[in-house]
Amino acid sequence: MITNTPPPPYYAVIFTSITKEQDPGYSEMGEWMEKLVVSQPGYLGHESARSGLGITVSYWESLTAIKHWKDNIDHQTAQQLGRRKWYETYKIRIAKVEREYGWPI
Amino acid sequence: MITNTPPPPYYAVIFTSITKEQDPGYSEMGEWMEKLVVSQPGYLGHESARSGLGITVSYWESLTAIKHWKDNIDHQTAQQLGRRKWYETYKIRIAKVEREYGWPI
Repeated sequence: MITNTPPPPYYAVIFTSITKEQDPGYSEMGEWMEKLVVSQPGYLGHESARSGLGITVSYWESLTAIKHWKDNIDHQTAQQLGRRKWYETYKIRIAKVEREYGWPI
Repeated sequence: MITNTPPPPYYAVIFTSITKEQDPGYSEMGEWMEKLVVSQPGYLGHESARSGLGITVSYWESLTAIKHWKDNIDHQTAQQLGRRKWYETYKIRIAKVEREYGWPI
């Protein structure tokens, strides 16, 4: 689903990744993180796709909200496992959304 | 491939879309646009994935560069065809990348 974000400005975290061979723990952890993230203060939604490259863009009210999520203890565990087991490489970009428009609305 | 972007600040265009039924013209147009975009002034790279939802994030030196690409006459044609034939819905967000970090580097 395309996220119904509020009028800008707000923040986007663009997470681009290449994973190693599939590991059942990876999708389990993904499901857990999906459940956890929606309850975070300042979380606005996220969009995700994977075909070779994986791209997840999450949307946030503020940089503080992003920092809190990054520092969440369970999320920290997921990040460490990710680096040790699941990701070949990744890049994270933190960006301030200045304009948005959609179609048909 | 994950794009090797320069140190921030630079701009990201986050294009999230849901397409209608597959149409051979869509991937042809996509290939043409991929060729065209790399020669645009201020273009830094792009990342793309589709699994249900499609996400393409392109990176640019400036808002002016983004505007030029939006107004490119061939790209305009692609946009019109996209709305008429290929997209169920899409959203475009223009964002200023303030921080980036990667792993393992």
